[in-house]
Amino acid sequence: MVPGHEMVGVVTQVGCKVNKFKVGDNAAVGGTVSSCGKCSSCGDDLENYCAKAGHAFTFFEGEEEKNYGGFSNIFVVNEHFAVWFPDSVSPEGVAPLLCGGITVYSPMKYFGLSEAGKHLGVVGLGGLGHLAVKFAKAFGMKVTVISTSPNKKEEAIERFGADSFVISTDAMQMQAAMGTMDGILDTVSGLHPLSPLIGLLKCNGKIIVLGGTDLELPVIPLLVGRKLIAGSISGGLKETQEMIDFAAKHNIVADVEVIPIDYVNTAMKRLAKGDIRYRFVIDIGNTLTA
Amino acid sequence: MVPGHEMVGVVTQVGCKVNKFKVGDNAAVGGTVSSCGKCSSCGDDLENYCAKAGHAFTFFEGEEEKNYGGFSNIFVVNEHFAVWFPDSVSPEGVAPLLCGGITVYSPMKYFGLSEAGKHLGVVGLGGLGHLAVKFAKAFGMKVTVISTSPNKKEEAIERFGADSFVISTDAMQMQAAMGTMDGILDTVSGLHPLSPLIGLLKCNGKIIVLGGTDLELPVIPLLVGRKLIAGSISGGLKETQEMIDFAAKHNIVADVEVIPIDYVNTAMKRLAKGDIRYRFVIDIGNTLTA
Repeated sequence: MVPGHEMVGVVTQVGCKVNKFKVGDNAAVGGTVSSCGKCSSCGDDLENYCAKAGHAFTFFEGEEEKNYGGFSNIFVVNEHFAVWFPDSVSPEGVAPLLCGGITVYSPMKYFGLSEAGKHLGVVGLGGLGHLAVKFAKAFGMKVTVISTSPNKKEEAIERFGADSFVISTDAMQMQAAMGTMDGILDTVSGLHPLSPLIGLLKCNGKIIVLGGTDLELPVIPLLVGRKLIAGSISGGLKETQEMIDFAAKHNIVADVEVIPIDYVNTAMKRLAKGDIRYRFVIDIGNTLTA
Repeated sequence: MVPGHEMVGVVTQVGCKVNKFKVGDNAAVGGTVSSCGKCSSCGDDLENYCAKAGHAFTFFEGEEEKNYGGFSNIFVVNEHFAVWFPDSVSPEGVAPLLCGGITVYSPMKYFGLSEAGKHLGVVGLGGLGHLAVKFAKAFGMKVTVISTSPNKKEEAIERFGADSFVISTDAMQMQAAMGTMDGILDTVSGLHPLSPLIGLLKCNGKIIVLGGTDLELPVIPLLVGRKLIAGSISGGLKETQEMIDFAAKHNIVADVEVIPIDYVNTAMKRLAKGDIRYRFVIDIGNTLTA
């Protein structure tokens, strides 16, 4: 089984009915590579929420169909599930936008957290978090990074342009930021308390959780201020193209470390330790060929 | 200390600057009896979310100010915090609308769960739940009551007009209702699992919790379908008047049992057992006079 998603490359062949791409075009694929095309999610350009969506790295025991991933020098995909990107941006910087980028961009748009002047909190400055800061700044928002790692403060502010940085374990800093944020993108996938984050929100504030661990839900703090906790995952193809276009216009790419395929096991170990700023990208084509 | 909220009565005196009421008018008061008037919540007609709001039954240890409640034959309130209701509706049926009614009406409006044709789930058929069903039906919605009490099915459907009734402990019934609802008003204040309720939602579905117990938040089910859990409590004065006007137009009142003041301890015991359909209302004026 070949895993891997967030692929970028150049079109080498097209089928006779393909209109969207021609040979030589840049093309990129995220996580979703098929969907039913008939349900209300597909009708709303939300293929990512189609219950029958296929992903670029899945194989379900007992089912005939498998979807190979992108750790391969060739990838075949229906044109609907590929997006285009211009030559002006680096392919390796674009790759992590295809899942990570759209995963932060889509909920910002959907939940009204992309308006200039609004104050967004970003919890966790990692693969998703650093992209969230870049998009939010491009939208003209005020951005506060909320992190357990004091050593990320300089990067957050100097490198990514965040307006402020709060250490989530510092009660004084958290207290000072209480009730100031319109929304929070919570990119932390491990167990962590929601209660202090809810406290950072203004009335009608929204926390969008992008991670996958079950959490404790403090209900009273939601009630007194009409706040909400929502989930969001990836985005549809139309919005993914829109995000790529927006990113290209604003020179937004991921900060990456490009590695050869034979470094992948070391990369996994470093990833587990959080020793990467901010995404590994494997140069599959060149290193497989070599 | 005099407790009690959700008061209705007739205006007996007005101050010289009062414009909104004259002697002899009906008047009703909910929970909120003061607010700062300066914050963004007050500016948005959301006095209920003002951090300095005063409630009709509060006394904080060590603070000089207390707000007496409505278990009294006379009540004095700033005109801004009273609403009017017509003679065409019964005062005892209106009283529970002032907090219970607005608590279901306001989130339905704010979260887009008041549109004709949408499918609303109502968890718990009690004081809040039976009002939620009445408002939702008046909005032209499809309504499903979700309850642990099979013996409430007939009432839900025959008396309140719900379209269907699901026993939440019946796995087959819950399975059949999976992915069918646009939103759910969760009126249960005790501990209960959110996971089965999230499963009932369509993509983009919303659960509005109105109760007060901390719950377990299953995150993955929120992600795959961009669902949300929100809290909401009461509503502002402008919307409370709008709700009363809507209720009067559609003949919506609470189903109540009117009791004299000296029955109140028995009523509290019956309330603890859930032996009330659906709200006790104390006839304070007459029974204090007697």
